[in-house]
Parts: sequence; structure tokens; C-alpha cells
Amino acid sequence: MAKIVVIPGDGIGEEITTAAVLVLKKVAEKCNLKLTFETHHAGGTAYDLYGTPLPQSTIDAAKASDGVLFGAVGGDKWDNVDPSLRPEKAILGLRKELGLYANLRPVKVPDSLCEYSPLKEEIVSGTDIVIVRELIGGIYFGEKCESEIVNGVERAWDLENYSVSEVDRIVRLACETAQKRQGKVVSVDKANVLASSRLWRRTAAKVAEEYKDIELSNMYVDNCAMQLALKPKNFDVIVTGNLFGDILSDEAAVLGGSIGMMPSASIGECTSLYEPIHGSAPDITGLGIANPIGTILSAAMLLRYSLNEENAAVCVEEAVEKVLKDGYRTADLYRDGFKKVTTEEMAARIAERI
Amino acid sequence: MAKIVVIPGDGIGEEITTAAVLVLKKVAEKCNLKLTFETHHAGGTAYDLYGTPLPQSTIDAAKASDGVLFGAVGGDKWDNVDPSLRPEKAILGLRKELGLYANLRPVKVPDSLCEYSPLKEEIVSGTDIVIVRELIGGIYFGEKCESEIVNGVERAWDLENYSVSEVDRIVRLACETAQKRQGKVVSVDKANVLASSRLWRRTAAKVAEEYKDIELSNMYVDNCAMQLALKPKNFDVIVTGNLFGDILSDEAAVLGGSIGMMPSASIGECTSLYEPIHGSAPDITGLGIANPIGTILSAAMLLRYSLNEENAAVCVEEAVEKVLKDGYRTADLYRDGFKKVTTEEMAARIAERI
Ligand SMILES: CC(C)[C@H](C(=O)O)[C@@H](O)C(=O)O
Ligand SMILES: CC(C)[C@H](C(=O)O)[C@@H](O)C(=O)O
Repeated sequence: MAKIVVIPGDGIGEEITTAAVLVLKKVAEKCNLKLTFETHHAGGTAYDLYGTPLPQSTIDAAKASDGVLFGAVGGDKWDNVDPSLRPEKAILGLRKELGLYANLRPVKVPDSLCEYSPLKEEIVSGTDIVIVRELIGGIYFGEKCESEIVNGVERAWDLENYSVSEVDRIVRLACETAQKRQGKVVSVDKANVLASSRLWRRTAAKVAEEYKDIELSNMYVDNCAMQLALKPKNFDVIVTGNLFGDILSDEAAVLGGSIGMMPSASIGECTSLYEPIHGSAPDITGLGIANPIGTILSAAMLLRYSLNEENAAVCVEEAVEKVLKDGYRTADLYRDGFKKVTTEEMAARIAERI
Repeated sequence: MAKIVVIPGDGIGEEITTAAVLVLKKVAEKCNLKLTFETHHAGGTAYDLYGTPLPQSTIDAAKASDGVLFGAVGGDKWDNVDPSLRPEKAILGLRKELGLYANLRPVKVPDSLCEYSPLKEEIVSGTDIVIVRELIGGIYFGEKCESEIVNGVERAWDLENYSVSEVDRIVRLACETAQKRQGKVVSVDKANVLASSRLWRRTAAKVAEEYKDIELSNMYVDNCAMQLALKPKNFDVIVTGNLFGDILSDEAAVLGGSIGMMPSASIGECTSLYEPIHGSAPDITGLGIANPIGTILSAAMLLRYSLNEENAAVCVEEAVEKVLKDGYRTADLYRDGFKKVTTEEMAARIAERI
């Protein structure tokens, strides 16, 4: 019996998590898994209801669950809310509360999806990367100062910082991820400028010594931003800090084609959280046209990493592939010659194929 | 009489600056400018000669000049040199010593060059962006700690920080740059996470109020990394901090096609510095095959910004365009149907067209 906490969040969050739960129920039936689902609020929706984007009840439920399926948070509606109560605080808070230290972002581009990439087909086809982003350290959670006067000038600051143990843990996970893949890890930093990057680099080198089957190399973040566009196929696993990971994983996602289809897993020591990489898209909320595949593939990652149900995960992933091959597309990916479906229909088609 | 200091640096630096000086001499003749040239060392080459990557004599000469033409620094050869004496310190040191507060990076993709971009032609053609990167502040020059023990754990840190006056100055320059273009400025930050970004954003808004003809919008850095790949044509001027600018300008450059052809200007209060965006390419050094166009177009920027010789600048830029139209290409851009030329030949062809 596995307990899944569903946090739809804001905007299209409800539509896409509903779609993913439908698929999870179908695969549970087929693979004989016992899953229960419990829904909780977070983000702007929670702020409107309770005055906080992350109610304690949501945190408690998430902590007590076997896995969290998250939709998306945010929207212009809350633009003028106090920064400490903005929707984003929900996801940042959950990361910290659950100790979600690693964000795994696969970017895989099968031939059938090359057309959605902004990159030329010959450059992008065959790309298969996993980005491992440190998620609860670095400048995101370092000390901050919103405003201080120094020598008559107002300034603000944020502390970028990494400890050996933080880097050790994330590089280890990257090496283990690579062991199940091509065995190549690229550690990305800015060691020619930053002290924290130099600590990162020397720690990564030490950890990699323990993984004789792994080939570790280092790359500067500016160069990585270039290489992702020039030779995405050359990458296997990328490991990097919170801020660089934020930028590079979004760049990689978009280069890979539709961000509507990209899943992610945020790994914690007890519970982990799964969410599509796209946002809450207030502009299309309620129209039933959002692409649920990113969330459905995130649910597959939940099956794999949190429930250890590799078969069920593969089952979902294959069903998605089949439905895409059959030519079904939500509005974001629709072109002449395809069959246009709504969010719900897409989920139903995928469930059927399971 | 304008005095230009040439700093070839390392690797291909000598070949490409020699090429650019040839072109400058030709345009000086044609436009009746009096230019003198003086060569100085920096980078690994300077380290080998004087034990420092940035000799005081080079700094003094640069300060006393009307403009600096810089090649490139760096190479594996100096990988094991003490971090404080590495070749990169030459360029970081020059930025600080000359107060080069703004790095201007045009990314322009004429139709004839779309084929070199990793992006699909319909996405990239017509792209014309100027990235304005803050260059002597932020985390690059903030306080650092290489190693300290806190609660038994070793950590390292870097301080990201911006003052109102720093942001004010760079946003002002971005607005003025946009006034001569489409009047659109996108300010890029991570204000949903960083205090320094929030100060950046509110300062940018204040400055923009003074420029009624400018349309200022804000974008998160992760989103910008995506939009550059998805809709590069939508951008006019981008203004951002040192670290984000480092990453985004390299991404934009590579999306725009050959980085061998991209120039840059680093603007100071007294003297400014001009350099191609590519590196020192030790692997092809001395072969005479490096693409000198990035450096030649940087020299054009020197004519424009430091000497106020707009005509001469345009003259160089048009000569480059003509030679490319004639089908001449250095090895990096060579394909069937083109005429392959060496570094020297490319410079000679461009000089001829002036
Ligand atoms: C919403 C924001 C705080 C968040 C981040 O920067 O981590 C988002 O961009 C992400 O990558 O999940
Ligand atoms: C060499 C390095 C320190 C430098 C930087 O990061 O600024 C380079 O990447 C650049 O963009 O000019």
C-alpha cells in the first residue's frame, strides 16, 4: 500500500495532475499495485485559502507519504503578494522541508520529437541527457540581505556557498545515475572565478576516484551553455549546483523540444517529489488543452524511484510513446496531419495503451 | 592621433590581432585617421616572461591609450599555475584596473550565416540582439572564502552583491543602447530567489522611468536561457549582471552561429577594450587557420565607441560582409562551394574591400 500525495498547485496544475492520477490508477490495476491518493493545497491557491503558500498540513502530509506528485505554482494574480508569501515559496519550502537535495531532469529526444526542437534535427536527434541539479544548497538558501547602506550606497547581497558534504552527496548520486547509463559525468562550475566552484571541483574529483567505472570531466558553466546547443548528444550525465542547474536544465529542456513533455524528480532522503518542468500557465488554465505528458512522465519517475516499480514505470513510458506514435497531440504540439486531443483525452489514450 | 594598445595574449591571439591591425591600418588610410599601435603582453605569455599574467607596464599602457585591442588568453599549458597567476587573471585584472563596467555583445545573424547556427533557420534568421553585461561587479568581484570549517564541515563561499549605483549605471547604458535600436530592454535577473536581483529589478524600473521611449521588461534568467533558443528574434537589448551575462551571452553567441565571428566591447570610463568572444584555441595556434573576423569586428567597435569614427566602423563591417558574400571562409566555416582562406588571406581580402 503506497500513499501518494497530490499537490495540484495553481493554474493548469489541477488538470495535469488529474490526468496523471488517471494514468497511475490504470497502471496500478494492471501491475497490481495498491495506491492511495490524497490531495493537498500549495501555491497561490493555498495562499488564497489559508494565507500561506505552504500550509503545515501540506508539509506533514507530504512527509508522511511515499511520494509527492506536484503540478505547478504561480500566476500574475499573486504578483503583488509579499515576496515571502509568493507561490514560488511553496516549492522552495517543500524542497527544504523534505530535504529534496537532488533534482533529476532527463532530456531525451526521440526521432519522432525532433521537429519540436528549435535545434536542427541532425544536432538534436538522439540526445539523451540527465541533469542532476543540487536543490537545497547554494545561493538559493544562503544568507541574504535585501538592503544595506555601505559608504552611503545601498546594496543587496546573497551568499553562494557549498560544503564538501553537500557536493559529495550530489556528485555521488550523479555517478550512480551514470553507472546505469553511459558512465560519463560532466561536472559544471565556474572554478576560474568562484571559490565555491573550486571546492566543488576538488570534491567532485575526490568522489569520482571511488567510481572507477565513471569518467568525470569538468566544464565551465558558460561553455556548458554553449555545448548544450552545439553538441547535446555528447552529454550523458551533467551534475551542477542549484543556480547553474536552474539555468542549464531549462536551456536543455527547451533545446530538447516541447517543455510540456519533460518530467523531473526531486530526490529526498525520505520522500521524493515529482513534477513537470513547465509552469502553471494561467493563460490556458481551465481550457482543458494543457499537455499532461510532463506530469504523466513525472508519475512514471515516481513509480521508478519512490516505489521501486520499474515495470510499472516503463509501462507508462511506453504507453506515452505509443500514443505519440499514433499521432495524438495536445494543442501545444499540434500540426497538420496529427489528431488533436484535450488534456483529458490524452490521459485516456495513454491509460488505454497501458 | 589615436593610440591603440594591442594585447595579443596567448594562442591564436597573435595571429588574429595581427589580422585586425592590418585592417585597421587600411581603414585609417582610407578614412584619413592617424592611428599608432603599441603591443603589450598579458596572459600565460606574460606569466612565462615576467612571472605575472598582467604586468604593470601593460596596465599603464592600456590606461594611457585611446583603446585596447585584445586577442585571447589561456591554455592548458598554465593549468597548474597558482590560481592567482592564471592567464584569466589578465582579463579579469584589466576589467578591474580599467573600470570596464559594461560588456557589449552584439549577436546578429544575417541570412547568409543562418546555416552556421545550431538553430533551425526560421527560428534564428533575422536575430539582432545586444547583450549588455555588467562586468566589474557581482559575484565575480565579491568577497570570497576558499575554505573554512563550520560545524566540522569544510565550506567555501562567494558573495553575490550589487549596489544601486552599479545597477543604475549599467541599465542606463542599456537604455541608451536601445534608443539607437528598437527601444526594447529586457532586464534579466533571478528576483524570485535572490535579494541582489530584487535590488537590481527595482533599480532598473526606476532608471527606465527616465527613458520614456524605452520599453523595459523583466525576465528570470532560467526563462531567458529558454527564450534565447526559442525566440531569439524577440530580443533587442538584454541587460544583466556579471554571472548571468557570462552564461547568457555565450549561449546567445553560439545560437547565433559561428563564435569565431562575434565581437565584443568592454566599456570603461576612460579607456575601453575590444576582444573577440572566442578563446585562445591552443590546438590551432600557429597554423594560420584561425578566423580573424571576431577580432576585426571588435576593431570596428573600437573605431565606433572609442574613436567616434562611425564611418570607419561601418566601412570595416561592410567589408567583412562583402568578403563573406564573395564566398571566402576560414577553415572553421568552410564547406563545399566556398573558397577556403587562411587567417592572413581573410584579413587581406577584407582590407582590399575597404
Ligand atoms: C520557481 C523557481 C523558484 C524555481 C527555481 O528557480 O528553482 C524554478 O525555476 C525551478 O527550476 O523549479
Ligand atoms: C575567462 C573568464 C574569467 C571570462 C568570464 O567569465 O568573464 C570569460 O568567460 C568571459 O566571458 O570573458
